[in-house]
Amino acid sequence: MSDDKSKFEIVFEGRGVASGKMRNDINVRWPGQGEEFQLATDEGPFHGGDGTAPPPLALFTAGFIGCIMTQIRAFGKRLNIPVEDLAVSARMHWKAEQVGRDPYESAPVGFGFDIEFESSASEADKIRLVEVAKKGCFIDQTLAVSNKVAHRLKTADGWVDV
Amino acid sequence: MSDDKSKFEIVFEGRGVASGKMRNDINVRWPGQGEEFQLATDEGPFHGGDGTAPPPLALFTAGFIGCIMTQIRAFGKRLNIPVEDLAVSARMHWKAEQVGRDPYESAPVGFGFDIEFESSASEADKIRLVEVAKKGCFIDQTLAVSNKVAHRLKTADGWVDV
Repeated sequence: MSDDKSKFEIVFEGRGVASGKMRNDINVRWPGQGEEFQLATDEGPFHGGDGTAPPPLALFTAGFIGCIMTQIRAFGKRLNIPVEDLAVSARMHWKAEQVGRDPYESAPVGFGFDIEFESSASEADKIRLVEVAKKGCFIDQTLAVSNKVAHRLKTADGWVDV
Repeated sequence: MSDDKSKFEIVFEGRGVASGKMRNDINVRWPGQGEEFQLATDEGPFHGGDGTAPPPLALFTAGFIGCIMTQIRAFGKRLNIPVEDLAVSARMHWKAEQVGRDPYESAPVGFGFDIEFESSASEADKIRLVEVAKKGCFIDQTLAVSNKVAHRLKTADGWVDV
């Protein structure tokens, strides 16, 4: 029965509250595991903040790198492909454009990972491991497709889709 | 000359090194600002880790919430739309599917934000602020389109695209 298909869902919830000048305190919950994490973002003085926490894109970058590394390690065990001294370098590149003093509009430019690890496995197996890790990484697969992100604003007349 | 177009680029770089059982220590740099941040991810015991840091998707969730909150606050100042008591709740939903003991493949399901703030501005201005914040949020705009994420593996013959 080793070809049985199985499915699971992962939901993360979070609530951020503005605290300092630009600081946001963010409570993240993983209800499926009963886990909860206290995180925060801030901006440096150049952007009007106090630099008490990393900026949002630093958390994004670390989360993305951690995601691919975790899948390489988890799937390495599952496929019996040894992984030693894993190190991953990444570059996240965006651009933004604005007219006069209008708020800028942003867009992605490119995302890349350089992956290194030692292994007694063949080069073919090492490549196969990166391939499956990529397909298993939730952030990787999210960026690969176009997503609808929903935004609702609370108004005097109730929640409004924006 | 208030309709002059201007552009800028944002690059974040990171390097993660596997340390504990599932822990990754990740150094994130924002070269354009000369800033550097030490972050980490881990998994709970259920996934073979020691729970010494949040899992990657918790950093992703907090980064995404922080991104939209930061743009609401920054653009609120720029547009003279007051923002008080900002709070943002979010839900990030993924699914995964596997055959037998094969590594699973993951996919996004949906992402949503519920945004609340007090303001002396009109409802129309509050809605406009959320609209521009969405377009200015780098993570939001990244998820909105299909991206090519590059992965290179270091082999005995040099770097190989995977």
